[in-house]
Amino acid sequence: MIRRLCLIGVGLIGGSLVRGLREKRLCGRVVGCGRSLDNLHHAIKLGVIDELDADPASAVAGADMVVLATPLGAMPGVLARIAGHLDEDAVLTDVGSAKQAVIDAARTAFGGLPAGFVPGHPIAGTEHSGVEASFATLFENRRVILTPTASSAAHAIRAVTRMWEAVGAEVVEMSAAHHDEVLAATSHLPHVLAFALVDALARMQDRIEIFRYAAGGFRDFTRIASSDPTMWRDICLANRDAILKMLDSYTDDLGRLRAMIAGGDGERIAALFERAKDARDGRLEAATGES
Amino acid sequence: MIRRLCLIGVGLIGGSLVRGLREKRLCGRVVGCGRSLDNLHHAIKLGVIDELDADPASAVAGADMVVLATPLGAMPGVLARIAGHLDEDAVLTDVGSAKQAVIDAARTAFGGLPAGFVPGHPIAGTEHSGVEASFATLFENRRVILTPTASSAAHAIRAVTRMWEAVGAEVVEMSAAHHDEVLAATSHLPHVLAFALVDALARMQDRIEIFRYAAGGFRDFTRIASSDPTMWRDICLANRDAILKMLDSYTDDLGRLRAMIAGGDGERIAALFERAKDARDGRLEAATGES
Repeated sequence: MIRRLCLIGVGLIGGSLVRGLREKRLCGRVVGCGRSLDNLHHAIKLGVIDELDADPASAVAGADMVVLATPLGAMPGVLARIAGHLDEDAVLTDVGSAKQAVIDAARTAFGGLPAGFVPGHPIAGTEHSGVEASFATLFENRRVILTPTASSAAHAIRAVTRMWEAVGAEVVEMSAAHHDEVLAATSHLPHVLAFALVDALARMQDRIEIFRYAAGGFRDFTRIASSDPTMWRDICLANRDAILKMLDSYTDDLGRLRAMIAGGDGERIAALFERAKDARDGRLEAATGES
Repeated sequence: MIRRLCLIGVGLIGGSLVRGLREKRLCGRVVGCGRSLDNLHHAIKLGVIDELDADPASAVAGADMVVLATPLGAMPGVLARIAGHLDEDAVLTDVGSAKQAVIDAARTAFGGLPAGFVPGHPIAGTEHSGVEASFATLFENRRVILTPTASSAAHAIRAVTRMWEAVGAEVVEMSAAHHDEVLAATSHLPHVLAFALVDALARMQDRIEIFRYAAGGFRDFTRIASSDPTMWRDICLANRDAILKMLDSYTDDLGRLRAMIAGGDGERIAALFERAKDARDGRLEAATGES
């Protein structure tokens, strides 16, 4: 049971977490904090938060659970603002898509890593954003990755784990470095590739025709290029090293495939395509139970 | 009304075309031709074809419409085999995803381009293949691109246009070179990128984890890597030049985005992502009426 939850950044992720906790009656009072007062008033009307406080420093006072759910780019500023204002036994977690950058920002803000700080990342979302898109079941059967630091206290890890499990998520732990690499491969790189592809096509002279003849596969393939540009800019900056590493590795692989196509090497092209199809059909289904 | 249709290659595309024509009662007798007798017998049982003939040369005899629906790689051999065996007023069309290569193969096979030959490409399909996956409505509201040659007779173009319109498709005409470029951009390049990405991830040591943490966006983005490897190998070989041109242009664009990320240039990254999102959301919807 969370007595007083402070939600900094009231959007799709934070709003859905609070809605889920409220449905399970696991959450007392919720104070919402953010830069847009309009959005906070809207969140009160929607019943997501009980009260608002535009200043993170005062918003966290008295909270036993603080959830930082702003875009990654805003986190360093918020962390600097709340340092020294958290209750002594408060638990602090975040939902950022890159973990090492948040940990670095916390270390800078707090002059070390607080025992109550447990970095986290729910692997969930939709193309839509904003508190009006939030819903209580967003995290059901989704994974939440926690990347505790060497300073994270066991009770804090337990509190954050229970919170996410209460809204239906499966919680796993790994190092921040490993998280950043896995997410760079499975999420950040695909988004970078999709944004770049759509932009490249849009700039072609015959662009209208190009979109006109885009079939179903193209729509699926580029759907992630409809994601929030600011959020993805922040992710590219926050997880830069892992993304560049994956991008370079991918570019090398693409170069090898290019050579096979240029050389007319049908056998090796087919072998690569078959490996890929098997990997996707087999492993993705085995791993997720979906196709 | 087609009196006798010869379908060479009885799979998803050819089977769906015949099913659609039969539903509209626009097609008399259908002879199916292919390398697998098992598949042809199966197609008879399914009611797709009326009779079978394993030899393209005799299968086309007496047909007023010949539809070549084999994988691209098989087309040169089939064209060579049927040359000299078509009825004088027979119309010949194909469904290949690359058009210049089919036209070149026809020129070689026939020693010139027959007046009855109208190359075509229905922009339709599913991840599934085979005649058992065929259905009459596959082409409803889909586009079919015809790329008539300078030798194509007007009556032949009309016959092929009417055939596709009868099963619900919108028929457009363009040059083979333009077709190959547009399709390289909207279909072939995305497939190459997706196959390469899934293969690259599958070869990584922590591959099980990587697929384990793959979220919804990854599933959409890589769905096209579940497509038939042989078909896509053939497309890479048949439309090699246009694909390499698009791939090189894309690799350049990706390199520019890489430089922005490496340089931490948030403003330009966000601008590119916004352009891409706007292009996809706006143009794709405007062009297709879907999101």
